[in-house]
Amino acid sequence: MPTPARPPLTPDDCRARDAAHAVADALRARFAPGAPDTLYFDANSIGPMPADAPARVAATLDAGWRVARRRSWNQTDWLDQPRLLGAALAPLIGAAGDSVAVCDSTSVNQYKLLRHALAAAAPRRVMVVEREVFPSNRYIAQGIARAGLGEVRLIDGAGDLAAALAPGDVAVVALSHVDYRDATRLDMGALTALAHAHGALALWDLSHSAGAVAIDLAGSGADFAVACGYKYLCGGPGAPALVYVHPRWQDAAWPALCGWMGHAATFDFAADYAPAPGVARHLVGTPAVLANAAFGAAADLWRDADMAALDRRHASLTDTLIALIDEQCAPLGVEVTSPRAHGRRGGHVALRMTAPDANVSALGQALVAAGVVVSTRKPDALRFGVHPIANTHAELWQAVARLRAILASGSWRDPRFAGEVR
Amino acid sequence: MPTPARPPLTPDDCRARDAAHAVADALRARFAPGAPDTLYFDANSIGPMPADAPARVAATLDAGWRVARRRSWNQTDWLDQPRLLGAALAPLIGAAGDSVAVCDSTSVNQYKLLRHALAAAAPRRVMVVEREVFPSNRYIAQGIARAGLGEVRLIDGAGDLAAALAPGDVAVVALSHVDYRDATRLDMGALTALAHAHGALALWDLSHSAGAVAIDLAGSGADFAVACGYKYLCGGPGAPALVYVHPRWQDAAWPALCGWMGHAATFDFAADYAPAPGVARHLVGTPAVLANAAFGAAADLWRDADMAALDRRHASLTDTLIALIDEQCAPLGVEVTSPRAHGRRGGHVALRMTAPDANVSALGQALVAAGVVVSTRKPDALRFGVHPIANTHAELWQAVARLRAILASGSWRDPRFAGEVR
Repeated sequence: MPTPARPPLTPDDCRARDAAHAVADALRARFAPGAPDTLYFDANSIGPMPADAPARVAATLDAGWRVARRRSWNQTDWLDQPRLLGAALAPLIGAAGDSVAVCDSTSVNQYKLLRHALAAAAPRRVMVVEREVFPSNRYIAQGIARAGLGEVRLIDGAGDLAAALAPGDVAVVALSHVDYRDATRLDMGALTALAHAHGALALWDLSHSAGAVAIDLAGSGADFAVACGYKYLCGGPGAPALVYVHPRWQDAAWPALCGWMGHAATFDFAADYAPAPGVARHLVGTPAVLANAAFGAAADLWRDADMAALDRRHASLTDTLIALIDEQCAPLGVEVTSPRAHGRRGGHVALRMTAPDANVSALGQALVAAGVVVSTRKPDALRFGVHPIANTHAELWQAVARLRAILASGSWRDPRFAGEVR
Repeated sequence: MPTPARPPLTPDDCRARDAAHAVADALRARFAPGAPDTLYFDANSIGPMPADAPARVAATLDAGWRVARRRSWNQTDWLDQPRLLGAALAPLIGAAGDSVAVCDSTSVNQYKLLRHALAAAAPRRVMVVEREVFPSNRYIAQGIARAGLGEVRLIDGAGDLAAALAPGDVAVVALSHVDYRDATRLDMGALTALAHAHGALALWDLSHSAGAVAIDLAGSGADFAVACGYKYLCGGPGAPALVYVHPRWQDAAWPALCGWMGHAATFDFAADYAPAPGVARHLVGTPAVLANAAFGAAADLWRDADMAALDRRHASLTDTLIALIDEQCAPLGVEVTSPRAHGRRGGHVALRMTAPDANVSALGQALVAAGVVVSTRKPDALRFGVHPIANTHAELWQAVARLRAILASGSWRDPRFAGEVR
């Protein structure tokens, strides 16, 4: 383990860092507190709840559903939310407001954009996908190939991308911006440029970076992107997902799923499909009204955020976490597996146990029992999802103290933590 | 207009009919009341809200999101809801519980099942679709054809189906069980048999019948079906939609959208996609948790319902509405355009104005202003969506009295009703 040249961090250091990054304080006050004495490091799975979300959902249920009923379709912004939410979130990912929409699930959107990319890059048919990417993205590509609409070329990592592109037949490279296990962040600009140099398009999954770190989609030249709505973006469990299409491809093809909400004139009930201009053509069916009401609370919060400042705060938080683990936990058999440079990490920090009898699932359960809500992924990743607004340096101190105590006592070996957790 | 041989209906007759169909009384008490003095006949657009829905959504927000956060994925039934809701609703449409799932939107599900049908019926490529069906279904088929995955053959109505099937090249006939304008209900069994006789499969959209009238999917031999979740089924605005696949086709092909929730072993994070057995393979991304919580309130209500008895009650309600219109409104320039036989109607009753200066949009707005929430569709349909549980015969009397007063006074000609409403 690299040992810092300075003295080990203290609780006072953590408090000082919180003071130095007070940019998030006003925003953090707009999140609802969780359970007492519980530290949440699971924004990589579900981000915290904006305090305003329940009131918004309740109003949608009461005024919108119970009282107004079908009049709400006409009298509210229910049908406009996919575009309004997209415009609110676009600055977080460096996109023009009218290039982002919020709809459907990440997997459904991945399908739409892989198909859109294949259409735009025809007659090329090859989709380059990572062998170890989050499985749903790989499955979506395999399904497209099974239907005869393309071909999957698996790579073991971004290092193999150049070789995969070399034959000159690649339509689209679909990469996860951040690995869901160890949080390695790829260089979006460089890899997009590499794809473009070989005549291929680039589709990025931002699920583990959007809302955690600053992203520059437009600057990177990325062609397409999706992002999960319920992780760092705090849209609520099962929230709809983001779709981004670079302006140059927005009108390149009909969408894969041609629904009435993506029609150029939805309420004309025209005989024939005509795609809406821009990203809106990727809307399909009726919006998820209740989910969008919850997401609206987060969107308003993000509207007031300075993502560049939050990126710096996220760097400070995760750098602090890594230093604390190095200092306090390395001697007890836990090491950081995420990259050391913030620019090469996504939203979370991954640890692994080095002991011969390591059981990361048991350690994760022991941490949760101690009030530190983290997550684990097979085979050996313990993940601390760090939210740039909601988490504090002081919380990190407490969480690492609890982790240290568990490791020192060996309490993770308790049989009650032996069961499998998905 | 046919004139009944009996004396005109009275308010007492309506009360008597409510007493004769008291089967719905206990269930009706489980819906939240709407605004005072407001009569809702818009279940064809958004069904009424179960009184329990806000508490369930609030609990999901508070205990599930705010407090438990990512632990809810493990400790609750969030991920099982698509199957649990499907099993609860299956009896309403005459399906086995494990043949129905609740997920995504109706349009997305229509895409999945059209593609599944094309795969099952390969090498046939023709999709027969009605020219005047609800447009999203037609657009979805046109999009599939545009991608070279099939061919659209439009028919002007079910009467043209035999001719469309005659060439023997039809893969799937995709029909709306009930017309969204005049409520005409097709004969699912006969048309499915006709399709089968020509080697084609049948996909039914039950959006305007599911939850309103009894449906016998299994008995009809239908191959596939979708249904909107937020109309008569009362799932809440933008609720996920139903997917039904007959057991004989469930394992016939990979799904069109191969996502992790439709994988045979989601949390194995396997290298390759392997479809889950049964209808579950059509699940794609993370479930819409908040929407499913609301839908759960309706599902519990439906679990206690006797759909055959509710079908009889719906027949009585809509027969009564038609009689009241005939008796009280026909002389004032409004006539029923829906079929006279209940078995040939879906959930709503459609009216049209016969006056030379008719303006159904203005009449609809005048009715809403008078506390009768109905809807209109171009060019001339005024729709009363009748819910078999929530609406009463007594309400019908009041609604028709208000309609009669508007027609008699000509108040629908007021300039404030002249604007267009989508």
